[in-house]
Amino acid sequence: MTLKVYLSGEIHSDWRERITVGARDLDVSFDAPVTDHGASDDCGVAILGAEDQKFWHDHKGAKLNAIRTRRGIEQADVVVVRFGDKYKQWNAAFDAGYASALGKALVVLHPPEHQHALKEVDAAALAVAEEPEQVVEILRYVLTGALPDRAARAAE
Amino acid sequence: MTLKVYLSGEIHSDWRERITVGARDLDVSFDAPVTDHGASDDCGVAILGAEDQKFWHDHKGAKLNAIRTRRGIEQADVVVVRFGDKYKQWNAAFDAGYASALGKALVVLHPPEHQHALKEVDAAALAVAEEPEQVVEILRYVLTGALPDRAARAAE
Amino acid sequence: MTLKVYLSGEIHSDWRERITVGARDLDVSFDAPVTDHGASDDCGVAILGAEDQKFWHDHKGAKLNAIRTRRGIEQADVVVVRFGDKYKQWNAAFDAGYASALGKALVVLHPPEHQHALKEVDAAALAVAEEPEQVVEILRYVLTGALPDRAARAAE
Amino acid sequence: MTLKVYLSGEIHSDWRERITVGARDLDVSFDAPVTDHGASDDCGVAILGAEDQKFWHDHKGAKLNAIRTRRGIEQADVVVVRFGDKYKQWNAAFDAGYASALGKALVVLHPPEHQHALKEVDAAALAVAEEPEQVVEILRYVLTGALPDRAARAAE
Amino acid sequence: MTLKVYLSGEIHSDWRERITVGARDLDVSFDAPVTDHGASDDCGVAILGAEDQKFWHDHKGAKLNAIRTRRGIEQADVVVVRFGDKYKQWNAAFDAGYASALGKALVVLHPPEHQHALKEVDAAALAVAEEPEQVVEILRYVLTGALPDRAARAAE
Amino acid sequence: MTLKVYLSGEIHSDWRERITVGARDLDVSFDAPVTDHGASDDCGVAILGAEDQKFWHDHKGAKLNAIRTRRGIEQADVVVVRFGDKYKQWNAAFDAGYASALGKALVVLHPPEHQHALKEVDAAALAVAEEPEQVVEILRYVLTGALPDRAARAAE
Amino acid sequence: MTLKVYLSGEIHSDWRERITVGARDLDVSFDAPVTDHGASDDCGVAILGAEDQKFWHDHKGAKLNAIRTRRGIEQADVVVVRFGDKYKQWNAAFDAGYASALGKALVVLHPPEHQHALKEVDAAALAVAEEPEQVVEILRYVLTGALPDRAARAAE
Amino acid sequence: MTLKVYLSGEIHSDWRERITVGARDLDVSFDAPVTDHGASDDCGVAILGAEDQKFWHDHKGAKLNAIRTRRGIEQADVVVVRFGDKYKQWNAAFDAGYASALGKALVVLHPPEHQHALKEVDAAALAVAEEPEQVVEILRYVLTGALPDRAARAAE
Repeated sequence: MTLKVYLSGEIHSDWRERITVGARDLDVSFDAPVTDHGASDDCGVAILGAEDQKFWHDHKGAKLNAIRTRRGIEQADVVVVRFGDKYKQWNAAFDAGYASALGKALVVLHPPEHQHALKEVDAAALAVAEEPEQVVEILRYVLTGALPDRAARAAE
Repeated sequence: MTLKVYLSGEIHSDWRERITVGARDLDVSFDAPVTDHGASDDCGVAILGAEDQKFWHDHKGAKLNAIRTRRGIEQADVVVVRFGDKYKQWNAAFDAGYASALGKALVVLHPPEHQHALKEVDAAALAVAEEPEQVVEILRYVLTGALPDRAARAAE
Repeated sequence: MTLKVYLSGEIHSDWRERITVGARDLDVSFDAPVTDHGASDDCGVAILGAEDQKFWHDHKGAKLNAIRTRRGIEQADVVVVRFGDKYKQWNAAFDAGYASALGKALVVLHPPEHQHALKEVDAAALAVAEEPEQVVEILRYVLTGALPDRAARAAE
Repeated sequence: MTLKVYLSGEIHSDWRERITVGARDLDVSFDAPVTDHGASDDCGVAILGAEDQKFWHDHKGAKLNAIRTRRGIEQADVVVVRFGDKYKQWNAAFDAGYASALGKALVVLHPPEHQHALKEVDAAALAVAEEPEQVVEILRYVLTGALPDRAARAAE
Repeated sequence: MTLKVYLSGEIHSDWRERITVGARDLDVSFDAPVTDHGASDDCGVAILGAEDQKFWHDHKGAKLNAIRTRRGIEQADVVVVRFGDKYKQWNAAFDAGYASALGKALVVLHPPEHQHALKEVDAAALAVAEEPEQVVEILRYVLTGALPDRAARAAE
Repeated sequence: MTLKVYLSGEIHSDWRERITVGARDLDVSFDAPVTDHGASDDCGVAILGAEDQKFWHDHKGAKLNAIRTRRGIEQADVVVVRFGDKYKQWNAAFDAGYASALGKALVVLHPPEHQHALKEVDAAALAVAEEPEQVVEILRYVLTGALPDRAARAAE
Repeated sequence: MTLKVYLSGEIHSDWRERITVGARDLDVSFDAPVTDHGASDDCGVAILGAEDQKFWHDHKGAKLNAIRTRRGIEQADVVVVRFGDKYKQWNAAFDAGYASALGKALVVLHPPEHQHALKEVDAAALAVAEEPEQVVEILRYVLTGALPDRAARAAE
Repeated sequence: MTLKVYLSGEIHSDWRERITVGARDLDVSFDAPVTDHGASDDCGVAILGAEDQKFWHDHKGAKLNAIRTRRGIEQADVVVVRFGDKYKQWNAAFDAGYASALGKALVVLHPPEHQHALKEVDAAALAVAEEPEQVVEILRYVLTGALPDRAARAAE
């Protein structure tokens, strides 16, 4: 059965593309939030009407986005959450907590310098990776049992 | 994956058709209650036998309809509930509460004059719209990330 | 074990008091929404700050009230929902749907003229009563097995 | 029934004390994570043995802390999550997501400058406050229906 | 989406065939227990080895059959339970209780003389019918909104 | 913690009393349906008004009783279901199915002649007993680890 | 609907192949853990980086494998757990407990000498078999109602 | 609120006593299976009647014990599973899997030589300890935040 993977978090680098391209030969379907920053910020007022207050402007948008993101997480077998170098990224951590409470298989992807700050998130994960290519290798192993070529060396 | 949308509530205007026609290019499947008012009222006695008491006449019908409506809500990703200008529409509010307790993404559609009376229902929703076309725009955004042309203006 | 009863719906008559006074000798605990209409409407802005828009004024209040009402329903064994003579009372129907989806024992209390409009709500209930005193009799029967004195006549 | 409140998030200011002192006359029980920063960081190795790698040092500690924090959230009626001025605070956002997926009543507490970055978290909440005293007022209202004295002005 | 219907209960008349033939033009899939009485009684010992004690002979068979029946009920949208004229049929009532606790739409089918003895089962059902053809009409109405020709008369 | 036991089924012998008396030294609380046959049959019309049709007379009663019986089963740790010598007892089998779907520990109590007819119910149980005293012994063993005096012989 | 079967446990004999070959004419889909012992042991470090400590080497691998095994069990209708002659096989028993808590139909497969040690696992199962061919017969019976040819003799 | 701890697994050493004595000053309640090996093996036949076949002798006992063990695990906040030096201990691993699927906080206690064989069980745990005293320290830390005196050294 197709493995359903949700790619949550950072939207300012090409990590999603590196995973989806790397896994194109696997029986995986990917879902993700809307990654157009402007559309994501303004969708609420664009569809449902303008707001004077920034709080409600954001609120309407965040709720519309939640229709997509909650469904994406709830339907996923694996939730990958990426933390990048910039911004607060509290929505990424929120998604990780949401996925964890639903018992989803959680994979966290972040640079090593975030290790201490993310220790609670990592502790809820089944894998912690640094590079998108490792996520591809995880998906390949989970689906086929095949390990990467470099595995022989690493496992020695 | 196809987005499953249940269209609950008012049955005396063309709002369902406006949504289904507007979304015909999207990967959405729609479900709804039986919208033939007469059939909906009389289905119970028509199939299971007449009743002397109006209460039981209604009761048998309401239970038959519940086979369809509960399944529709339970299988939906998004539940849209429309409140119109007339009638008590308690079944619409009941459906909204039912959907909310199941954690469904709730979209409420009503004219502005009902705003105060529907505040508890709106507070449980992820979007509150006034026109069926806004629901189409929500579905399009949720599935594709695309905002309506008029969004540029609204988001300014 | 104490029977937990939540009394939802209409707040402009003394029906809650008639039930709680009538059941004062029974092992029942009662919960209910805030029934001070003004406080219920304004709690959000009173605590969290004023809003220019009536929609958000109501929204903040409805969400604060939801902290209490959802907990009340979720912890209840029996949810009684009262529909009165006036107002839209969509929050009452919402609560009934919410309680029904959670599998709560639902008791509906309404005057006979609402029978047709409430048929879907009634169909989800385990009892439909017209007077608060009947609710007391239900609670007494459920807890003790005792029927009201007038039962001998009615059951003949 | 006692209202169970879990106080998650920032541990470097006196916000928890301000809430617990302010609510001391209410029927509320409070729970929270271990707020001794050093103990929280080192508990894993202190009890289960030292680790050479910082990752596993943190990992063992984060898992021990999860015994307490998950239970606290799962048993709570209301989960308050506080975001302060400093640090990444991803564990706070994680807790908010976890609580949200469990359907807990979520109250978020943060200074106004975090509003945009926290919009997804705020959108999942039933209340967003800036000061601990507002949380006390929420708890008081939820339990007793009483509004703060300053409410008369705010609600005008 | 295909309506999944599980046909539980009596195995000594042609009621299942009357329903499946009657509904052959509808988007319905049917499931049922093994209806070969001999195979159903002896499957356990036939596959897993003979038993000296009738109790364990029956026990092994009943458990094998449970692999099929529980799955059938759990995957169904609608569970139809038929009570016939003979035998104790406790397994039919057990299935009805099992389906009810899972929140399945329950349809009970029995001759009128069993009405009093089945009152608890009927009270958990969304429809109580006497003839298999009525079940076909229910399925047709639930899926298409169409009422039987004779409905005009009955609804008058 | 007190072991909560629900005693479902037959109401025409003293089996419940034999169990509650036998277990009076144990930390057990017992619950059961209303066992006054007349009250149980007529409660609906006695409280909610007379019905012309026997079906609805029974229906209203069965639903009122369900308020008590479902709560009893849902709150129980152990559900004991007794099948006696007479009547159809479909409500007993319904309760067993209901308890089983909820994952309750099920104990079935019946005379040996019902063994074949109850094989599906017995197969869902954690114990099948013939005498109420055996149920007492089960409760004592579960709570204290103590076996009956006659155990030494039986276990040889 | 295709019957989903997860084959857990022992990986050093051909039992999985005997079942999948034997059931190739049935509407069954099979899933299983990675059965390459070396890959299963080393997958964690091969993908996510080497560890000095054997505990963490194993830990990373076991967690990656859990992505596959938990999904396999959660999606299965039937979980078959095989205990062989060698090794501790605690992961097999763990899977059986995991499947049992999720309410999966559990089939246990083991040689007779393990009967006493596996009594708790067997007691949670719907079938206990000794040979893989019996599992094929179970699947055939569950799906088609057909018993093996040798059944006539066994059932006599 | 009292922390509920279930102590599963090995019954031939004093580890349970070491934990309960060590934690006697903490707000913890302990539960465990019946640890009298003979009673545990024979309870089924002792209460429900002798069996000729060892399989059914064991089966009846294992099911009676399951009434206690499943309840103990389901009611626990923390499930500690101890693996000792001898026996297959598949019931301990089964309990660990059962607890894990229910989302319980799992603590595993075993000598270091079982590390590789228990890697899947350990990977599901929030703590892996070698000595009962460490479990006491975990409980103390979880409840009070206090670390053991020797923690200063270990955390350096």
